[in-house]
Amino acid sequence: MAVKTPTVKLASGYEMPIVGFGIWKVPQETCADQVYNAIKLGYRHIDGAWDYGNSAEAGQGVRRAIEEGIVKREDVFITSKLWNNYHARDRAHEMAKLENEAWGLGYLDLFLIHFPVSQEFIPYEQLRYPAFWSDKEQTKVTPFKQVPIQETWKAIEELVQTKENPNGFVKSIGVSNFQAQLIYDVLSYAKIHPSVLQIEHHPYLTQPDLIALARENNITVTGYSTFGPQSFLEMDHAVAKTIKPLFETDAVKSVATKHGKSPGQVLLRWCTQRGIIVIPKSNSVERLKQNLESSTFDLSEDEIKQISALNVNLRFNNPPAPIRIFA
Amino acid sequence: MAVKTPTVKLASGYEMPIVGFGIWKVPQETCADQVYNAIKLGYRHIDGAWDYGNSAEAGQGVRRAIEEGIVKREDVFITSKLWNNYHARDRAHEMAKLENEAWGLGYLDLFLIHFPVSQEFIPYEQLRYPAFWSDKEQTKVTPFKQVPIQETWKAIEELVQTKENPNGFVKSIGVSNFQAQLIYDVLSYAKIHPSVLQIEHHPYLTQPDLIALARENNITVTGYSTFGPQSFLEMDHAVAKTIKPLFETDAVKSVATKHGKSPGQVLLRWCTQRGIIVIPKSNSVERLKQNLESSTFDLSEDEIKQISALNVNLRFNNPPAPIRIFA
Repeated sequence: MAVKTPTVKLASGYEMPIVGFGIWKVPQETCADQVYNAIKLGYRHIDGAWDYGNSAEAGQGVRRAIEEGIVKREDVFITSKLWNNYHARDRAHEMAKLENEAWGLGYLDLFLIHFPVSQEFIPYEQLRYPAFWSDKEQTKVTPFKQVPIQETWKAIEELVQTKENPNGFVKSIGVSNFQAQLIYDVLSYAKIHPSVLQIEHHPYLTQPDLIALARENNITVTGYSTFGPQSFLEMDHAVAKTIKPLFETDAVKSVATKHGKSPGQVLLRWCTQRGIIVIPKSNSVERLKQNLESSTFDLSEDEIKQISALNVNLRFNNPPAPIRIFA
Repeated sequence: MAVKTPTVKLASGYEMPIVGFGIWKVPQETCADQVYNAIKLGYRHIDGAWDYGNSAEAGQGVRRAIEEGIVKREDVFITSKLWNNYHARDRAHEMAKLENEAWGLGYLDLFLIHFPVSQEFIPYEQLRYPAFWSDKEQTKVTPFKQVPIQETWKAIEELVQTKENPNGFVKSIGVSNFQAQLIYDVLSYAKIHPSVLQIEHHPYLTQPDLIALARENNITVTGYSTFGPQSFLEMDHAVAKTIKPLFETDAVKSVATKHGKSPGQVLLRWCTQRGIIVIPKSNSVERLKQNLESSTFDLSEDEIKQISALNVNLRFNNPPAPIRIFA
C-alpha cells in the first residue's frame, strides 16, 4: 500500500503534498518511467519546469498512471516554471500554453516564475538543456531583456482559472529564487496572492529571515537541493566537490542513527517538519521510496536546531556572472 | 587652502565629489555650524535625508557659506532621500518639495529612494528622529503600504529637471539599500537611469557582486558606514559593541602605519580608490579634515585585498523584524 503524503493548504486554497518528486536532471529517456514509478510508490506531486526539458516525458508517465487507474488527474499536483527568455507578456502566455500541452494533463497545479531575470527570447526549437543562461558554447551570456517583473507577474495571473477566467489552465501561481525586496514588491501589486516561493534550502543555506518573510505573508516555501552539495556534484560544481557532504556531517549522522533513518530522510524531515515542502530527485526506486517515507517520523526541536546550525550561507545554484541576481 | 576633492561623473552627466560629509546623526543644534565648517574645510558634498531630521539646519550652514562667498551653490553637491512613508506618487512629490524647501538651496543634486520599503503615511508634523520603522515607543512596526517601487521610481523621475520638465528641482536620482534583483527590475522600467546606489559598505560587508552589478550598469556606488561598527556604537548596537573595531584590525593598522595615515583615512581610501564614494560623519573639525584629505595617497592592490579579506558579510543597518528587507 502506497504511503499517503500529508499536504499543506496554499494561499489559493488548493492542497499541495509536502513531498514531491523533483525532475530536474532526470534524463528524457527515463523520465516517463521514473514519474510513473514515483506515482506507483505513492508520490502525488511532480516538480518540473520548462527549463528541465522533460515535461512531455513526465506527462507521459503521469498519463500512464492515470490510464492504469493508479490515480486520477486531480490526485496529482503538477508544478512547472516559466523560463527567463519568456518573461514578456505574450511570450509568457505562449510558453505556458506549450508547457501545459507538453504535460498533456489539461491543467497545471502550480506555475512559477523560475528566476527574476528576463533574458532575450530564444526560439522554442532551440530549446537546450540544461539552461539558457548563455549561448550553446557558454561563451556569451544571453543578454537581458527589459521586462519588469510586474509585467511577468500579471501575465501569469492571467493564466489562473477563476470564475472570471474559466479558460485559465493554472490553479496556483508563485515565484522561485526571489529575494525579500522583490517579494515585497510583488505583494504590492499582486491581484492574485503568490502561493509558493521555491528556493534553494538546505543546512548550509538556511535563510531564516527569507523563510520568516514568506510565512508572515502566507507564502508556502518549497525548498530545492535539500541535500545541498549532493545535487551539484554531477554538474562538476567546484565547491560542491570540496565541502563535506551533508550526509557525512556529525549533526545529520547522529540524528539519523538515533532515529534509525537515512541521512537523506533526516534532511527531508528537517524541512517538512518546519512546513517547508521538499522535491527530492532520485534515479533509484528504493531511494524514491525512502524520500517519500521521510515524513513518518519527527525530529526534536533540539535536533532541528543542531542541523540548522550547519548554516554557512553557502549557495550552490548561482547563475554565471555577470548575472548577479543574488547580490 | 582647502583641499580640492576629486569627483566622479554620474550617469546623469553631473559630477559628484568622492568624499562627502554625511549628516546622519548630526544633532540639529550643531548641524548648521558643522556643515558650514565642513564647507570651509573644503567639503563640496553633503549627504542628508528627510529621515535625518536636520535638512533645514544643514541648508542654513550651506547658505551661510554661500553668503560669505566661500562657495557658490553650484559648487556644492546636496543629496537627500525619500523616506518609507512617502512612497505613493503624490506623497513623494509633496515630501520632495518640502525637503527641497528645507534645504533652501533652489534644487537638490541627488534624490534617492532611501529604502525599498513602503510604509503607511505619517503626517509631517509627527516627524520623529531617528526613523519611522515603528511607532514612538518602538512597540509596533509601522504597517506596510502597498506601493510598487515602480510607482515611487516614476514619481522621483518626475522631479528631475530636463528640457521637457524645466520646473524639476532634482538633478540626479538613485536608490539606497536595494538588492540586486530589485535593481535589475528598476533598470527594466527606468526612463531616467539611476545615477547612484547607496549601500552599507565596509571591510566587514564588502558585497563584491552587488558592486560589480552597479559598475556594469553605470550606477555609481556610495558606501555608508565606512568605519563599520563605529557608526552603530552610539545606537547601542549589540554586535557593533562586541566585534573588533575596524580601526584596531591588523589589516587596517599595518597599512595605516606604513602610509603614515590614520586608520580612518585608510578605510576611506580603500573605498574611493575603487571608485566608491564615501560620506563619513564626524563631530570633530580635525577628523573632518582628515577624512577629506583621505584621497591624497594611494594603497597598493595588495593592501586593498588585505583589507577586503576582513569581509564576514556582517550588516549593521538592519531594520527591525518583521521588516526583512535584506533576506
